Amino acid sequence: MAASPLIQQLMEAFRCLPGVGNKTAQRMAYHLLERDREGGRQLSLMLQKAMDGIGRCSDCRTLCETETCSLCAGNSRDDTVLCVVENPMDVEALEQATDFRGRYFVLMGHLSPLDGIGPEELGLDGLGERFANSALQEVILATNPTVEGEATAQYISDMAREKGIRTTRIAHGVPMGGELEYIDSGTLSHAFSGRRDLT
Amino acid sequence: MAASPLIQQLMEAFRCLPGVGNKTAQRMAYHLLERDREGGRQLSLMLQKAMDGIGRCSDCRTLCETETCSLCAGNSRDDTVLCVVENPMDVEALEQATDFRGRYFVLMGHLSPLDGIGPEELGLDGLGERFANSALQEVILATNPTVEGEATAQYISDMAREKGIRTTRIAHGVPMGGELEYIDSGTLSHAFSGRRDLT
Ligand SMILES: [Zn+2]
Ligand SMILES: [Zn+2]
Repeated sequence: MAASPLIQQLMEAFRCLPGVGNKTAQRMAYHLLERDREGGRQLSLMLQKAMDGIGRCSDCRTLCETETCSLCAGNSRDDTVLCVVENPMDVEALEQATDFRGRYFVLMGHLSPLDGIGPEELGLDGLGERFANSALQEVILATNPTVEGEATAQYISDMAREKGIRTTRIAHGVPMGGELEYIDSGTLSHAFSGRRDLT
Repeated sequence: MAASPLIQQLMEAFRCLPGVGNKTAQRMAYHLLERDREGGRQLSLMLQKAMDGIGRCSDCRTLCETETCSLCAGNSRDDTVLCVVENPMDVEALEQATDFRGRYFVLMGHLSPLDGIGPEELGLDGLGERFANSALQEVILATNPTVEGEATAQYISDMAREKGIRTTRIAHGVPMGGELEYIDSGTLSHAFSGRRDLT
């Protein structure tokens, strides 16, 4: 390695990004150093602000820097329908692909007993309280169509139906084993509108 | 966009990286926020240190955080041979691919009159002083095999030969229009050892 220690440390730091190997990290480091230091400084600042300032919405549990996210804080959404997803990116994908106007709940994962992720770790007790106290009429289960996502949907469906709330699952227009956030808008929209009652 | 303003700003900041579009920026932001905040903080710190602390070696003009880079500061290299390259990454590529033991000079670009980059902008006056005052016996021109790289090599060759210094050009084992830093080690090593006198 002919690069100076600090440049090597910068390259190493880029490796924390998904899909970034040695060669890509090298190109990123030199690109900023040679051509865009202001961009690099801005990225540094935004990383620092976001890593320290982003928490979770007290209501839907998605990632945001305020006590409540803008979607939960607004009063233009339909409180009778709640869509449960695994990740914040799924909210973005659904907002873009569908005309859903209800509320969300973001699990930040799925049930995975082998990894020590049970109902408590996913905040399902908080979700249960919402089932008990709200005007909810339908819970849409939009977890990923994986084994864990299906098990999580089933678990939450049982919780909701105990309270007499209808539960639906987005249609499997998407291949099993896939992940929601990778699916094109058309397929996702189709799957969403084709949701069916869970039995 | 359902993402919070700060998350949107972080995504936007990632766009300064080469090859990073909206979707990749989104994945990077959420990956760090959901799974690796420590990595994100470390990247922020290293970016800040590097953007502010990396200058250019007073000798070979490559990027480094010290007055003189470690390669120039060391006394194990052969002062009679100087290899001229366009970019710091080319030094790394040559150090990895060849057994070259001489010195380097890094132009940080090439002659490009239309973009206002002339001999002065590339620091060629400093290079001229080295030609006048040193024990140099050979200048290896390892600029990219592009139109601009060839013109730059020719210009520097003329400067060197005015001082009676032999100049060589790395062999064109590489396709015209290509860039040195993308070429595999084997091809680069072959081209380097097959260099010939400029006429
Ligand atoms: Zn919220
Ligand atoms: Zn140097």
